[in-house]
Amino acid sequence: MTTNEPWEGLRLDGHTVVLGIIGDPVAQVKAPLPLTRLLQARGTNAVLVPLHVQGGDVGSLFDALHAVRNLAGIVVTVPHKQRVAALAMELLPAAQQARAVNVVRRTPQGWQGDLLDGAGFVRGLVRSGFDVEGRRVGLVGAGGAGCAIAVALAAAGAAAIDVQDVDETKQLALIDRLRALGHIAGRWDAASPRDLVVNATPAGMRPEDPLPITLSAIRPGHTVAEVIMEPAITSLLAHAQQLGARVVPGRHMMEEQLEAMADFFFDGTQE
Amino acid sequence: MTTNEPWEGLRLDGHTVVLGIIGDPVAQVKAPLPLTRLLQARGTNAVLVPLHVQGGDVGSLFDALHAVRNLAGIVVTVPHKQRVAALAMELLPAAQQARAVNVVRRTPQGWQGDLLDGAGFVRGLVRSGFDVEGRRVGLVGAGGAGCAIAVALAAAGAAAIDVQDVDETKQLALIDRLRALGHIAGRWDAASPRDLVVNATPAGMRPEDPLPITLSAIRPGHTVAEVIMEPAITSLLAHAQQLGARVVPGRHMMEEQLEAMADFFFDGTQE
Repeated sequence: MTTNEPWEGLRLDGHTVVLGIIGDPVAQVKAPLPLTRLLQARGTNAVLVPLHVQGGDVGSLFDALHAVRNLAGIVVTVPHKQRVAALAMELLPAAQQARAVNVVRRTPQGWQGDLLDGAGFVRGLVRSGFDVEGRRVGLVGAGGAGCAIAVALAAAGAAAIDVQDVDETKQLALIDRLRALGHIAGRWDAASPRDLVVNATPAGMRPEDPLPITLSAIRPGHTVAEVIMEPAITSLLAHAQQLGARVVPGRHMMEEQLEAMADFFFDGTQE
Repeated sequence: MTTNEPWEGLRLDGHTVVLGIIGDPVAQVKAPLPLTRLLQARGTNAVLVPLHVQGGDVGSLFDALHAVRNLAGIVVTVPHKQRVAALAMELLPAAQQARAVNVVRRTPQGWQGDLLDGAGFVRGLVRSGFDVEGRRVGLVGAGGAGCAIAVALAAAGAAAIDVQDVDETKQLALIDRLRALGHIAGRWDAASPRDLVVNATPAGMRPEDPLPITLSAIRPGHTVAEVIMEPAITSLLAHAQQLGARVVPGRHMMEEQLEAMADFFFDGTQE
C-alpha cells in the first residue's frame, strides 16, 4: 500500500454517481478527466468512465444500465449516436431534429436524450465575445457536427446560414432542414465573406490537409471558428489571425459542451 | 472551467480500464479510491466505481457488462456474493468451496470468480509478522467471512481450527467442512487460550457490543485478529493489547485484499 494519499479532494467512494462514455473505439475520448473535474469542482460527487461497446451490444447494455441506480447517464460518441437516439424514450429538440444524441440521462421511465454539440458550439462563441444575433454565417461541413451547429446558430438568432459541403446531397439536406425550421439558409461557395466562418469538417487535423475554405471568405474583424481540437490552432485559424480576424478554437466548443453536459446530467435545466 | 488541474497523476481517459463494485446498498463501500490508487501506483490505468444494483437485475447486468471490452471485472459485495457465484462460468477453489465470490474477472468465455476474503486475511497476518504454520486457531463467527478465513488459515498450514458461533448449525457446518477438506477442526468455547484468536463476527462495531470472546482466551505473546475495520481498535483489540497480546486490526485484511484484488484483475496470477 502507498502511505501517502495522492489526488487530494477527489471523491470516489460508495456515494459516487457514475457516468459512462460509450464509443467504438473509445480510446480517443478526452472527456473523462475534464468532466469529472468540472463536476467535482461544482460539488457533485461523480465520475465519468469510458465504456468500449460495439454496436450490436448497445441495446442490451442500455437496458441493463438502466437498472444501475447510481448511474446518472451516458455520453455517446461515434458510431453510436443514432442507435442510442433510437433507444431513448424521449429526445429533446436538438436530438429529435438530428435523430442523434450525444448524451442520455436516466429517468425512472427510460433514457432521455439530447445533442449538445450545437449548444456547446454557440456557448463557446458567446463566451469568446461573439454575438450571434443578426450575423450571417458561412458554414463548411454539413455532417453531424455541421448540422447541429447550423441549427443551434439559427436558433440563437443568426440572420442567415449559408452552407458548403463537397457532398451536395448533404449540403441541400441541411439547407432544406434550416428552411423547414423557418430560418434563412442557402448555398455558400466558401469564398465570399461572412461575419462568421465555421469549419465543421475534419480538414485541418493533419498538416497536409487543404484549407476547408478560400481565404477570401475572411475579412479583418470577422470571426472564424473551428470544431477541430487538435491542433489547437489549425492552419485555417493561423491564416485567419494573420488576416486580422478573431478566432475561436475548437476547445471552446469542447469546454462549453462539458458545462452543458454537467447541466444536463445534474441540473436538469438544459434546454 | 477550472484553470488549475487538480489530482495530478490521476489517469482517467479513453484508455482507462473500468472495474465496478456492485452491492445493494453500495454507499457503504470503501474500496473505490484505495483500489484505484493502488492500481495506478502499480502503473495500471484503471478505476473502480460503485454500481448500485438490486438482486433481480444482477443477471442481465452481468450479461451486458461482459460486452464492455474495457471492463476487467467486478468486485461483489452483499447481498450478491452467492448470486454472482452462480452466474460465473468458473470458480477458483476458495469461491467454489464457499459457493460465493467477492471478485469476478472477465474472460473471453465468461466470468471467472474468486473469494479473496480468506486470502486477504492470511496475507494481513503474514504481513504483520504472524506465522500461521503449526498454530492453533480459535475462531468466533462461522458466517461468510469466518468460513473464508477458516479455510484460508487451514490451507496456510494452521495445526487446528476451533470454531465458535452462537448459531450451532453454522458452527457444525464449518467444522464439517474443514474436516472434509482434511483439516483438524473442532468446537471452541471462546474462553480457552489459542495461539491465534480471530473475531469474524460484527461484535465490536458499536461501543455497546459485548466482547465476542472471554478474555481468558488471550495470553501474552499470542495474537488477536479482527475483521472489523471501524473502529480501527475494537474493544477486543484494546483488551488484547492490555493483556500483552499482539493485535492485527481489520484494516490489514482490507489492505491485503486490495493487493489480492489488484493481482486477480490484472496479473492473472492469483491462486
